[in-house]
Amino acid sequence: MSHEFMNNKIDVFISSQSFQEEELRDKTAVVVDVLRASSTMITALHNRAKGVIPVADMGDASKISQNLDSPHYLLCGEKDGVKIEGYDLGNSPLDYDGEKVEDKTIILNTTNGTKAIKRAGLADRVLIGSFLNLRTLITDLEKVETDIVLVCAGWKGRLALEDLLCAGNIIYELTDGILPHNVQDGAKVAFGLYEKFGDDIEQAVKTSNYAVRLKDLVSEEDIAYCCQRNKMQVLPVMKEGIISDFYGKEK
Amino acid sequence: MSHEFMNNKIDVFISSQSFQEEELRDKTAVVVDVLRASSTMITALHNRAKGVIPVADMGDASKISQNLDSPHYLLCGEKDGVKIEGYDLGNSPLDYDGEKVEDKTIILNTTNGTKAIKRAGLADRVLIGSFLNLRTLITDLEKVETDIVLVCAGWKGRLALEDLLCAGNIIYELTDGILPHNVQDGAKVAFGLYEKFGDDIEQAVKTSNYAVRLKDLVSEEDIAYCCQRNKMQVLPVMKEGIISDFYGKEK
Repeated sequence: MSHEFMNNKIDVFISSQSFQEEELRDKTAVVVDVLRASSTMITALHNRAKGVIPVADMGDASKISQNLDSPHYLLCGEKDGVKIEGYDLGNSPLDYDGEKVEDKTIILNTTNGTKAIKRAGLADRVLIGSFLNLRTLITDLEKVETDIVLVCAGWKGRLALEDLLCAGNIIYELTDGILPHNVQDGAKVAFGLYEKFGDDIEQAVKTSNYAVRLKDLVSEEDIAYCCQRNKMQVLPVMKEGIISDFYGKEK
Repeated sequence: MSHEFMNNKIDVFISSQSFQEEELRDKTAVVVDVLRASSTMITALHNRAKGVIPVADMGDASKISQNLDSPHYLLCGEKDGVKIEGYDLGNSPLDYDGEKVEDKTIILNTTNGTKAIKRAGLADRVLIGSFLNLRTLITDLEKVETDIVLVCAGWKGRLALEDLLCAGNIIYELTDGILPHNVQDGAKVAFGLYEKFGDDIEQAVKTSNYAVRLKDLVSEEDIAYCCQRNKMQVLPVMKEGIISDFYGKEK
């Protein structure tokens, strides 16, 4: 991508509470929730789930599930890092294997990630990003002509290192590692973080607030898994409230 | 400062809207609004203003001024970067020379900075930081035994590069340039930004969103002035709603 393209064209919001929905209008939004909603959705779609419906709370999850035949969906998600009682699956991407998710619609309810996706609804196009599908995402973003906003899920309105680090990685790839002077402040911040910690993403994420705060709830396997780059050629795109893989039909 | 001291002891909030006031209880808060409230307050105190009363809006400013004799105070501030009509001074630090401010109480009303100060009120101690008083501030923080939170003013809830850069500079100095693994995410983000842009602060701040957004309102002299490091031995401390220089009495 030429650096000219990037001028003022890319920004980063640190949490779902740090922007007005209106600010995304006519833009391409990429929602990033590395630990673990994005990674979980990408894994589910990679393992041939039919689609993911992100919901903002248990009430919405329950309402949507009532309109679907039970063999066709799974009720999934976490609250404050813990699987919700009575749900089929939690928020560990390792649970979303082909045997469980193939051809199912996943109704997903999480503390921060799905709220960020809901708030990104006014964007021209909403994609889901994580380290797992980084290369696939970059290939798509290189062709985008609108402004791009990377929407980090964060943690209850605060920034989360792993999300900003992933946003920084995306910007680093898009700019060939040379950040133009006149991109937005948020992009500069994410880029600087990536330059500092990009050499060992897993180590950085292991010592993030999220990993430390939820160390009894989130396995080291989950963290190691979510820090893998370019593992899956999946491009989750939201259409009419349902996220599916752009490449799904080609498979 | 030993690195042990820093473990988990320092965090950064990116804007006055990114924390709950309660989160500052028992901590030392440093409010940073490089462009331009912090720099202006420090300049005013350096030029022997008696004190600065930060107010959140024009209503508060007017109420407080009614209780003071007019020869003893100046009504100062800006809204969206512009001096407020009828006020004595705006928000350019260059206006706060000794002739104008000596022995006066400054009632200061700004878009982001004074709101951040008001929201920091529950902290054990509230200090004001900028590049201008960096060394003086560091010397104080090195002795602090509570947790330290650097509260960036930001811009209407969004992050502002110049404030995070200053926060990163403070952390860099406090950690002798070697960030421990287990500080808070916000501290890592600010540190990474400083490592990226710390070599030429003025250049980085010139291309910040603030400078670009307000380029017709904020002079290059203001920006160059606010990016100077260690120019003034001033430590603004808030007590009962009034900010004064901790070293003022020694002068």
